[in-house]
Amino acid sequence: MDDTTMLATALAEARTGLDEGGVPVGAALYGADGTLLGRGHNRRVQDGDPSLHAETAAFRAAGRQRSYRGTTMVTTLSPCWYCSGLVRQFGISRVVIGEARTFSGGHDWLARHGVEIVLLDDAECVALMREFVRGHPDLWNEDIGAG
Amino acid sequence: MDDTTMLATALAEARTGLDEGGVPVGAALYGADGTLLGRGHNRRVQDGDPSLHAETAAFRAAGRQRSYRGTTMVTTLSPCWYCSGLVRQFGISRVVIGEARTFSGGHDWLARHGVEIVLLDDAECVALMREFVRGHPDLWNEDIGAG
Repeated sequence: MDDTTMLATALAEARTGLDEGGVPVGAALYGADGTLLGRGHNRRVQDGDPSLHAETAAFRAAGRQRSYRGTTMVTTLSPCWYCSGLVRQFGISRVVIGEARTFSGGHDWLARHGVEIVLLDDAECVALMREFVRGHPDLWNEDIGAG
Repeated sequence: MDDTTMLATALAEARTGLDEGGVPVGAALYGADGTLLGRGHNRRVQDGDPSLHAETAAFRAAGRQRSYRGTTMVTTLSPCWYCSGLVRQFGISRVVIGEARTFSGGHDWLARHGVEIVLLDDAECVALMREFVRGHPDLWNEDIGAG
């Protein structure tokens, strides 16, 4: 399972979120052997639930795990502090990021704390977020606590 | 609404969690005017949901908010990195903590980033966690990603 293939899963989740009228960020959690453990997308609008960012939705979908050693979290967008804290606390080993141009969260901090960070700088991820933020600035600011 | 009264709400949530067979950490989010916005407790065992720590459960229960300026998160236990990240990202202004003896998360980091931290060092909170960790070390380690 290569990083680009994993990103495609996250991007499919983001597009589903956009189609639902939500914030188009998607993510997935993969096991050390490449097994898909969970996938999800931001559900602020759909469920009225501010706690479900893409990464926390994927983490939730993966259910209870004894250990996250060797796992990879792939996300279309640089993880915010909330989602970066999730990665650090649970010892997720790698984070594959679609892009960090439209928003940059805690991925440098994670790198300093031993998490392997792969930044793909994917043009599709950038375009998706750029268009969304332009069209829905209030919703985006609400989602990152910039209200 | 003083800090001790707010802590009583979090402690009641923690005791409910214990009665349900879960991890006994409770939390509540209060508005700047002292209004209770949301309360909750860890639901790993009850819902099989690792994403619901006490603080994220209280945050979720509060629903969508335009801003967290002036809000207080009260929790029976020092917030882990996941929950500390939540506080930082959403700009929650104050964190009132029951105790940090049995587990110490990111509250010093939050203080450095401008969050007001009040550590009550409450004996009941300490006793509750100490007994739980002694009786359920595997569950506790799973909950903080130390598995």
